[in-house]
Amino acid sequence: MASVVLLLTCADQPGLVHAVADFVLGIGGNIVHAEQHIDPEAGVFFQRVEFTCAHPDVATIEAAFAPTAARFGMHAQVNRSDERPRIAVLASTQPHCLADLLARTSSGELAADIVAVISNHPDHAALAAFHGVPYHHLPVTRDTREQQERQVLEVLASAQVDLVVLARYMQILTPQVLDAYPTRIINIHHSFLPAFVGARPYHQAQQRGVKLIGATAHYATADLDEGPIIAQDVTAVSHRDAVDDLVRKGRDLEVVVLARAVRAHVEHRTLVFGNKTVVFG
Amino acid sequence: MASVVLLLTCADQPGLVHAVADFVLGIGGNIVHAEQHIDPEAGVFFQRVEFTCAHPDVATIEAAFAPTAARFGMHAQVNRSDERPRIAVLASTQPHCLADLLARTSSGELAADIVAVISNHPDHAALAAFHGVPYHHLPVTRDTREQQERQVLEVLASAQVDLVVLARYMQILTPQVLDAYPTRIINIHHSFLPAFVGARPYHQAQQRGVKLIGATAHYATADLDEGPIIAQDVTAVSHRDAVDDLVRKGRDLEVVVLARAVRAHVEHRTLVFGNKTVVFG
Amino acid sequence: MASVVLLLTCADQPGLVHAVADFVLGIGGNIVHAEQHIDPEAGVFFQRVEFTCAHPDVATIEAAFAPTAARFGMHAQVNRSDERPRIAVLASTQPHCLADLLARTSSGELAADIVAVISNHPDHAALAAFHGVPYHHLPVTRDTREQQERQVLEVLASAQVDLVVLARYMQILTPQVLDAYPTRIINIHHSFLPAFVGARPYHQAQQRGVKLIGATAHYATADLDEGPIIAQDVTAVSHRDAVDDLVRKGRDLEVVVLARAVRAHVEHRTLVFGNKTVVFG
Amino acid sequence: MASVVLLLTCADQPGLVHAVADFVLGIGGNIVHAEQHIDPEAGVFFQRVEFTCAHPDVATIEAAFAPTAARFGMHAQVNRSDERPRIAVLASTQPHCLADLLARTSSGELAADIVAVISNHPDHAALAAFHGVPYHHLPVTRDTREQQERQVLEVLASAQVDLVVLARYMQILTPQVLDAYPTRIINIHHSFLPAFVGARPYHQAQQRGVKLIGATAHYATADLDEGPIIAQDVTAVSHRDAVDDLVRKGRDLEVVVLARAVRAHVEHRTLVFGNKTVVFG
Repeated sequence: MASVVLLLTCADQPGLVHAVADFVLGIGGNIVHAEQHIDPEAGVFFQRVEFTCAHPDVATIEAAFAPTAARFGMHAQVNRSDERPRIAVLASTQPHCLADLLARTSSGELAADIVAVISNHPDHAALAAFHGVPYHHLPVTRDTREQQERQVLEVLASAQVDLVVLARYMQILTPQVLDAYPTRIINIHHSFLPAFVGARPYHQAQQRGVKLIGATAHYATADLDEGPIIAQDVTAVSHRDAVDDLVRKGRDLEVVVLARAVRAHVEHRTLVFGNKTVVFG
Repeated sequence: MASVVLLLTCADQPGLVHAVADFVLGIGGNIVHAEQHIDPEAGVFFQRVEFTCAHPDVATIEAAFAPTAARFGMHAQVNRSDERPRIAVLASTQPHCLADLLARTSSGELAADIVAVISNHPDHAALAAFHGVPYHHLPVTRDTREQQERQVLEVLASAQVDLVVLARYMQILTPQVLDAYPTRIINIHHSFLPAFVGARPYHQAQQRGVKLIGATAHYATADLDEGPIIAQDVTAVSHRDAVDDLVRKGRDLEVVVLARAVRAHVEHRTLVFGNKTVVFG
Repeated sequence: MASVVLLLTCADQPGLVHAVADFVLGIGGNIVHAEQHIDPEAGVFFQRVEFTCAHPDVATIEAAFAPTAARFGMHAQVNRSDERPRIAVLASTQPHCLADLLARTSSGELAADIVAVISNHPDHAALAAFHGVPYHHLPVTRDTREQQERQVLEVLASAQVDLVVLARYMQILTPQVLDAYPTRIINIHHSFLPAFVGARPYHQAQQRGVKLIGATAHYATADLDEGPIIAQDVTAVSHRDAVDDLVRKGRDLEVVVLARAVRAHVEHRTLVFGNKTVVFG
Repeated sequence: MASVVLLLTCADQPGLVHAVADFVLGIGGNIVHAEQHIDPEAGVFFQRVEFTCAHPDVATIEAAFAPTAARFGMHAQVNRSDERPRIAVLASTQPHCLADLLARTSSGELAADIVAVISNHPDHAALAAFHGVPYHHLPVTRDTREQQERQVLEVLASAQVDLVVLARYMQILTPQVLDAYPTRIINIHHSFLPAFVGARPYHQAQQRGVKLIGATAHYATADLDEGPIIAQDVTAVSHRDAVDDLVRKGRDLEVVVLARAVRAHVEHRTLVFGNKTVVFG
């Protein structure tokens, strides 16, 4: 049975849990999952409530919930669990994250549809075709960035994209794109943050003799690599690992960390507040 | 401010979250944490609710909650977060888990008091004395098990113990003890379960060339090593590790896994159902 | 520059390292990596020596090394690092391990060639074709096992396969196949060994409330799931994970653990002794 | 039987492994472990050779090896595995790392002797006394640093210390101390490096919403927190973890990472080159 996911944020105050439970009961719903978090320093309340009900119509539920939201000053998102988010994946030359996301959606593991693959290179056309996904080759140079981004935005709009995934897309997006999809663009950073700053981080890591390398998935913001973190992981390395080995191990990390972040978003488990992400379990 | 932790189990049914939130609101409480879980196959509802209120008296709250519990057939536990559980630690010759738990309570990290150390060996008297904890040396042989267990039970009773921790206690407890403290005896098993069966598991592991070894903390039951699991962890090993290295790495695992399980219990984050433990985050 | 990898096993005795270093120096080679291990209980010496030399011809080096091998009773394997092992992948319906191995060889990450995909189902024909690998659909029933295995052996022989990878191949191989490729068949077991015995291990794991699940890659032997372990890994799970989640997390583990084992074999880092695998770093 | 550990560094060149094996054979030794590493970019050779021999006298072996070392321009360290390094532990107010190291040496797990505990606070006198280790309370202010460091150096000298461990010692050491014990001072840094710069890193980590925290053990150098890394590890955290939880989880990491680094040093498994540490397995 389709369920409804309610994601809520507001200033912490008495009666919130009760009010939400009251609302769900009132529309004949049954809560199947509920998790909440209070940020004690900021005094902010976060809640994810998943419930089943006879008529899980998003617009109807949003309208019914509006008075409660208004009373507590809540920011509320309502989603049906059976509505598959529409994803566009942007990639440059490296295929590993793109291929992994295509495989996970094709197999049905990830409850979302990849509806567009966009790349500044032609490399992935066959891969996209294999999975039956339209491929948009949109080359870019320093001089054509603004124009290319407009093309990207057109693809995103016409494909009615809900989520943009930067799967090792090596171009910096300008606010023109970032502001159009706030907390709806996920990037994979090839490092554990905070990280070696500047070019060739794996060379720096090898130079420094680190014993672990990592990867970080985060929402993209104008502050490069500084957006709210969704998922991170690391793997052990040693002096035996040449730069190439770090790059290879890094790729495996990038794949799993990005997939984990996309899954959390697609299942409506993430709530952003300031520069932090609450990821419900 | 002291908070109250409510741990609930009952058959899943509509209105549970609402009823609990209603109760908390009714006694003037404010929910600071709430987490729930539904076991879909068993149809069982689990909830941990932490709330602050003006008069956090356990008996009063239990009485006030009784009608709600009765209505839904709930099993309910009420605890104050500022009441420090009283722990007895049982150990044999190995000190590592005992020393760790004493250090964590002495430093204040673990919000509990170790009120008795019991051992079938005299080895840890100085360690217990260093931490100001009474030491009970209760030797045991195959013939005196029943009598020694009665002595153990007397110590536990007179020290008003809430939780018994078997910190590498190498004696098998009989139902005489186990039944007196249901889901209140935590054992650390020197293996990742399911495990090599029989004697000398590390020798077996080394013989088999495993690449990981583990440790498991669980509630003790009459089925040896088969009680509900609270925490588990593993660490990497290789052909370079001799049996001694496995034993050493195993000790480090045992320490952290046992500490994690004790913390979860002490913070009232565990609920046992059948042979499984729900551990709230 | 191509290097040569020497893999040696023999009874431990004085002078082994010296003799090997002497040999390499004698043929004008330069050791770039050398690692050895002594199993103290079995008294067995293992060594992996990688060296560069002007004429890295395998047959010539084998002949030159024969007297040294004879003197110490060594079992020796000689391989060139630039000779790409030829791999056959056997799969049933699940594509994740197969797809991963195809991607890693296609991208050049894994220095091997997949020269045949064999399946008892037709499902992966398009995937194999995408990577330009011949697909052999060899259905099997209980009654046709012997005959189907002969077909499998014919494919392996005609494709000159060096390594067979069972990538979630859900058929039991008989000694007819196993004995033809000793320590050259790698299987991925969907569990951390020792494991829940019998059918539906993930259901058992969920029932038992384990906090970790694992995967094990091992050489296939007649003792099902009991062959020498090459790689293992685990991931954390909780009461929140339904059986489906365990299966999904298990898949991710299987992919990385199998890839790690195949890489170790392909780079000539594994030596089997008895039921154990020495995996050089 | 006592063995001898030879640690070697020199420019990579043909014949190194052979020459060392030749030397060991010549003095009637038998190699029980040997591991080597070549840094391909720097062209540097590292080797750890452990061998048994009839008369494992360090001075005699050093003298015998001198011609070989001279021929290849080797830097060589010779140690007996049964000579227990003498350790001084420096701590401030936090006891966790100190207590752990004392427990590991007292139990015999770590083959070293802690011969002095030095602190700028009086807090750990009883703990040191419990383990029978002299306690040196050497208070320090900004104005008395130079003088206090001279006292520290006197304690280190009179206790004939081989290794200094900074176990959460919150004072910055000047070159006066650092230069006296090059690559013989191990520090534990309460973060995964590279890390949040500046004060209160756990607050920064919590603010940033990181999903992992780490700890790093490294040799202390004049560049604060920039010395050669010996060991690192991380643990998962989430939005549920308050700063106090990060601090607590960080402590557990610090304990195990520092112990791992001290063990590697004590077993003569570390070789420093430039700003990197080769840690043999």
